[in-house]
Amino acid sequence: MKNLPDINTQFAEWYQEVIHRAELVDNAPVRGCMIVRPYGTAIWENIVKVLDAKIKKTGHQNVLFPLLIPLSFIQKEAKHVEGFAPELAVVTQAGGKELEEPYVIRPTSETMFHYMFAHWIKSWRDLPMKLNQWANVMRWEMRTRPFLRTTEFYWQEGHTAHATKEEAEQEVEMMLNEYIDLVEQYLAIPIFGEEKPASERFAGADRTFTLEGIMPDGKALQMGTSHLLSQSFAHAFNIQFQNSQGVLEHPWLTSWGVTTRLVGAMVMVHGDQKGLVLPPKIAPIQIVIMPIFRKGADAEQLKKVCQELKEKFDVGTLIGQSGFMFGPANARVVIDQDEHETPGAKFYKWELKGVPLRIEIGPRDLEAGQAVLVDRLGLGKKMVPLDRIVEEALSMLDTIQAEMYARATKKRDSLIKQVEKFEEFASELEKGGYAYITGWCQQDGCEQKLKEYKATIRCVLETANHKHCFMCDRPSVADILVAKAY
Amino acid sequence: MKNLPDINTQFAEWYQEVIHRAELVDNAPVRGCMIVRPYGTAIWENIVKVLDAKIKKTGHQNVLFPLLIPLSFIQKEAKHVEGFAPELAVVTQAGGKELEEPYVIRPTSETMFHYMFAHWIKSWRDLPMKLNQWANVMRWEMRTRPFLRTTEFYWQEGHTAHATKEEAEQEVEMMLNEYIDLVEQYLAIPIFGEEKPASERFAGADRTFTLEGIMPDGKALQMGTSHLLSQSFAHAFNIQFQNSQGVLEHPWLTSWGVTTRLVGAMVMVHGDQKGLVLPPKIAPIQIVIMPIFRKGADAEQLKKVCQELKEKFDVGTLIGQSGFMFGPANARVVIDQDEHETPGAKFYKWELKGVPLRIEIGPRDLEAGQAVLVDRLGLGKKMVPLDRIVEEALSMLDTIQAEMYARATKKRDSLIKQVEKFEEFASELEKGGYAYITGWCQQDGCEQKLKEYKATIRCVLETANHKHCFMCDRPSVADILVAKAY
Repeated sequence: MKNLPDINTQFAEWYQEVIHRAELVDNAPVRGCMIVRPYGTAIWENIVKVLDAKIKKTGHQNVLFPLLIPLSFIQKEAKHVEGFAPELAVVTQAGGKELEEPYVIRPTSETMFHYMFAHWIKSWRDLPMKLNQWANVMRWEMRTRPFLRTTEFYWQEGHTAHATKEEAEQEVEMMLNEYIDLVEQYLAIPIFGEEKPASERFAGADRTFTLEGIMPDGKALQMGTSHLLSQSFAHAFNIQFQNSQGVLEHPWLTSWGVTTRLVGAMVMVHGDQKGLVLPPKIAPIQIVIMPIFRKGADAEQLKKVCQELKEKFDVGTLIGQSGFMFGPANARVVIDQDEHETPGAKFYKWELKGVPLRIEIGPRDLEAGQAVLVDRLGLGKKMVPLDRIVEEALSMLDTIQAEMYARATKKRDSLIKQVEKFEEFASELEKGGYAYITGWCQQDGCEQKLKEYKATIRCVLETANHKHCFMCDRPSVADILVAKAY
Repeated sequence: MKNLPDINTQFAEWYQEVIHRAELVDNAPVRGCMIVRPYGTAIWENIVKVLDAKIKKTGHQNVLFPLLIPLSFIQKEAKHVEGFAPELAVVTQAGGKELEEPYVIRPTSETMFHYMFAHWIKSWRDLPMKLNQWANVMRWEMRTRPFLRTTEFYWQEGHTAHATKEEAEQEVEMMLNEYIDLVEQYLAIPIFGEEKPASERFAGADRTFTLEGIMPDGKALQMGTSHLLSQSFAHAFNIQFQNSQGVLEHPWLTSWGVTTRLVGAMVMVHGDQKGLVLPPKIAPIQIVIMPIFRKGADAEQLKKVCQELKEKFDVGTLIGQSGFMFGPANARVVIDQDEHETPGAKFYKWELKGVPLRIEIGPRDLEAGQAVLVDRLGLGKKMVPLDRIVEEALSMLDTIQAEMYARATKKRDSLIKQVEKFEEFASELEKGGYAYITGWCQQDGCEQKLKEYKATIRCVLETANHKHCFMCDRPSVADILVAKAY
């Protein structure tokens, strides 16, 4: 099979090719939609598992809300409809008849949740109300790319209501932090978790916080958002509660979500010329055990040893100097013992699929009572005695996870330049390849110019290292991250 | 709060009321759709968890396929379009424009899977292909009832392709058996897992196997299906593979699914006049610990003991005479320590919600070093020493699970009558209240008459206890189950 497109000079082509070859997705016969294949689905399921546990642990409950939303609901909040109207898919016929009122396929479910909040929330005792759903949503996008921007995508959307603005702000921050933990600690991607400028807020929000990753081509990728919604939603849907003094008040609302885009982010940030590189905590297959068959050697004996090794990972084993490890070793392990494929073809396949760790056992290794551990990052092969393999492999998975985050951080930092004035980086910004940190006076006017370069302020940072606005002569109020974006 | 409608004389009203009061669902402002609330969602998630593990263990992989299907796909298989056309919801506009070809919201995804199968399946080496997806689907039904029949519902749909008819038949049977295990061993519902008569097959199937439960009102509920599809799907979508001799063949296809209807089945089969009764293996809350506060007694001490007890369930403990139990005790436990609600109101609430086991601890129990275990079935209160509570409670959950299945089986059997001739049961069938087992000659003509009574042959049994057809004078070929159905 021919090589993947060059990751440095043809990054977009490399991305398209690697997600198809590694069998994450296929093209669907529906405009802008994707078929997520088993390997891609398994990656998403692992992300869901981690995040769902976080969502529940922080006091939220899952619900299932309808796919369809009456068009009139979307129209209730002025900014919301303005933001979403151009992207709606509309059901006009059902059961063989024209519908009296069309339904839209949810582009997001704020309006439906708020409609139900108005039914459920009567008193301060009903607050906070903290709900979440895992769902498919649809936005009729013009230019689509699997995982990164698709007409239908999969996500979770949290919707909460609180008695005070402070509580709602705490919620927005807490979920932003949970997302940061997910992305940094599990996906091994360094991230800016910061506030959006007013111009980039969610349609109908007072404040929008974002997770911004920097991809290898210098473009920013918005990987999740957490919003403090404006009171206008509570007014539009007439959500009111009696406070402890018996006075009617409108609650403060939040919403937050991450999508299947996270899968695309992992592909881009960690991938290399050989294919995917998946972080062990999310990889559907963490370890592939590969018997290396040789003519004249006992293939069955080799298979048996590999099977026994796999079982140690599956059912658990006694490990470590000091004590017990009961239960499964929590490693997802497969054996590739196809005798008709060459070891070279197998290496190629599992490297393409980004499996973090390979264990090779040949006849001579067996004689020597050892196996060879090969990591996907090229940290170096290791000969390990068979009775210490499980312990060593688990430890290497930890090392790989940490090393991936360290490398991604180093790479990300190399893609960001500290700049002072627009003239300095305008022409380079146009060409692409980097993101920039600079100062901003926080006036809309100074932001406008960036649009001509198809760039935006991705987020406002908490630092103030730059003294002057990048565009005008006013003093800078805060540093900002400027980039083109996916 | 007033009592639930009488479960014996007003079963339909009881059902509607109990699912709302126990907060499983709420009405959605979308025709025929439901809002599944946290408690209902948690029940469904527990079912999903068990079934997803079974699906994966039997060699299937999950995928995510598009919500929308081109209308032309549905029209490719003649019987399929005939079966589904009246129920389709159609997207005619998207992104502000009329679509050239309308899309339908999937009523089921055979056509989309088969379209992809044609791309993926080239050789016998690609077979079997065994895929599954968890998804929402939509069928524009006229009469809807939460969980039992809704416009949008949630399900899993398995789609597989095999080299031979025998393999496909084995798949159909295997998944039927997995469903039977799920329903009987987890949902504690006795079930007929048998074949449908030709007239009741899935639109486009050669054989349809069904799970038929008998509800307390004598009506049958179809709780899942497993289909051997006709070859016409493979022809319609041009799915072909080269067999090991290099000859092109059409693969044999299957599909199988269960839905959120399972939640409704559990409500109906196990519920009583006090509310839900949930089987421990599926119950979101298996045990509620309830401190019984008394004036003058130390409430804080009571709360502390309850908390310590809950932690034993949560983090695991040493139990049993013989050994260790590491890790969580696998019980889902909550403490209800609201001091403002009376114990009576709490009992009422948790009984309504169907929590299988309650642990009460009052000040005197504390002195005596014991607690009171009360099961939802009324098997009898038990005083248990505090240091044996975890062991005893886990054992009681097992007992409750087994007892629920035994009771449900006894009840189900009492709702089925063995009958010989139609005259015998025709007038009773019209009134409702029972299902019937009788003989059938397997001629369509004899089946027709049942439709006038709004009844159908729910499935063909493997027994042959009845000598003559219930309708004509011909000998019976097989026993059948006759009932009205949801």
